[in-house]
Amino acid sequence: MFSVCSVGHPPEKITSLQNPRVKQLVKLRDRRPRDEAGVFLVEGYRQIRRALEKNVALTELYFSRDWFLGENEDALLAQAAAAGATLFELSKDAFAKVAYRERPDGLLAVAPQWHRKLDDLAVAGRGEAGRPEPGSPTPATAKAPFLLVVEAIEKPGNLGTILRSADAAGCDAVIVCDPVTDIFNPNVVRASTGVLFSVPLVVAESREVHAWLKQNGIRTAATTPHTENLYTQTDLTGPLAVIMGSEQYGLSEFWMKESDVLVRIPMAGQADSLNVAMATIITLFEAVRQRNG
Amino acid sequence: MFSVCSVGHPPEKITSLQNPRVKQLVKLRDRRPRDEAGVFLVEGYRQIRRALEKNVALTELYFSRDWFLGENEDALLAQAAAAGATLFELSKDAFAKVAYRERPDGLLAVAPQWHRKLDDLAVAGRGEAGRPEPGSPTPATAKAPFLLVVEAIEKPGNLGTILRSADAAGCDAVIVCDPVTDIFNPNVVRASTGVLFSVPLVVAESREVHAWLKQNGIRTAATTPHTENLYTQTDLTGPLAVIMGSEQYGLSEFWMKESDVLVRIPMAGQADSLNVAMATIITLFEAVRQRNG
Repeated sequence: MFSVCSVGHPPEKITSLQNPRVKQLVKLRDRRPRDEAGVFLVEGYRQIRRALEKNVALTELYFSRDWFLGENEDALLAQAAAAGATLFELSKDAFAKVAYRERPDGLLAVAPQWHRKLDDLAVAGRGEAGRPEPGSPTPATAKAPFLLVVEAIEKPGNLGTILRSADAAGCDAVIVCDPVTDIFNPNVVRASTGVLFSVPLVVAESREVHAWLKQNGIRTAATTPHTENLYTQTDLTGPLAVIMGSEQYGLSEFWMKESDVLVRIPMAGQADSLNVAMATIITLFEAVRQRNG
Repeated sequence: MFSVCSVGHPPEKITSLQNPRVKQLVKLRDRRPRDEAGVFLVEGYRQIRRALEKNVALTELYFSRDWFLGENEDALLAQAAAAGATLFELSKDAFAKVAYRERPDGLLAVAPQWHRKLDDLAVAGRGEAGRPEPGSPTPATAKAPFLLVVEAIEKPGNLGTILRSADAAGCDAVIVCDPVTDIFNPNVVRASTGVLFSVPLVVAESREVHAWLKQNGIRTAATTPHTENLYTQTDLTGPLAVIMGSEQYGLSEFWMKESDVLVRIPMAGQADSLNVAMATIITLFEAVRQRNG
């Protein structure tokens, strides 16, 4: 049997489906109770391990040995407890009720939400506006900011894929221009495969984002089919924010008008072969190519 | 009410869930009955329209007005009938039984399977081996072959995305090196958003594919983390096959050894941020960039 030294005695196993903790975990699948409690769910071994690696302060960790798939769960429980999480053991049935995955692995954590603002991003001051006077040497540490800005994303799976792309491309942050996107939706957490815990993510309105980028001397390059500029023949080096439109409507009029440059990805096949997640990764990796020289 | 002139009278509506046609449609979700009948399912307005556009000879089209979402269904029915499909009307309940989509739109077609072989591909003879003698001018029509080769793909959704990427990048064909992949799985058909009907797709064994590529003078570039060659600094022009490993195991020893060149995509974030579909689209579009310019 597992026990945690700091607790002193193994906590009692939760078996009732009517237990208030079980009921609350089920409620946390919906946004309103999540926002009211200021927390969100992190399910599964890999996600929880990644949260711990990134020092996310898990408050509670629910587990059920009947669902365990591997042999490292006990070490993860000990690590979470050591980091301050309270552990709760659940019966097989109780865990089946709280799990939102199709194939649960007996691990479900609760973590506090966070809300980053644009000015929290470490890129502030690293854009053109933050550059030293002409003539003075550029400090070697002043890596030009590289941001991804996406308009309203409807599908949590797409947002997850976009976060992974931004992580792989080394973006400093992802900004979602849609105040209603809930980045703590369980499907975003899952689809991001833990990137949610590492890539800074800000949700803000387009006008505010545009003003902030200007203020920080960060150029904007927006992708749209409605331009002649090929993305590969446009300068994507220096302080840059790549702007992607929404799944359904494409680039908004606002960004179409306010972006510094519009770029187009050449398409050989049927018009809808590239979805927003695919177009994002193509554009980001072309920027990486140019930025790596 | 809808009626088709060529039929002369509207066919009787199928209402029984025990109707042999209803039962057969349900069976066609599984591979064995599909292969035995030599057919597959195409569900939904968009997919069926694309199949018709690409002259796929739909044999049967099942519809239920109770599920129709738009106003163009009748035109599609007429088009399918004109192209030789037999129409069958179903009751709401009967259609609910045969639909495999979560949100049916009242349209489900049956199409004949096809099985392309490597030598059916129009790229044969366009590789280095097919080039004119040195000194003689290259015909302007001799566009260098551009192929995508993927090893075993487990998830139908990934194969669908990969097909879309190949279509967008203008690949001449996609070759899957895994004799057990079923390209007529309903989820592949759906995830490909119709590209299955336009991009030539061949399923064959790695050794056979390798020999065929050699014979046709087509260079192979395989992606793997285990090389120093950056994909952006490697020549991807000329007759080319991009080789991608499988989701779970990456590039096989065979292609690791037999490929003409290995290339690496630089990764800034956590090791698993790029899945095979994402790595594929990045590599294909870098090849497009080099080939266009």
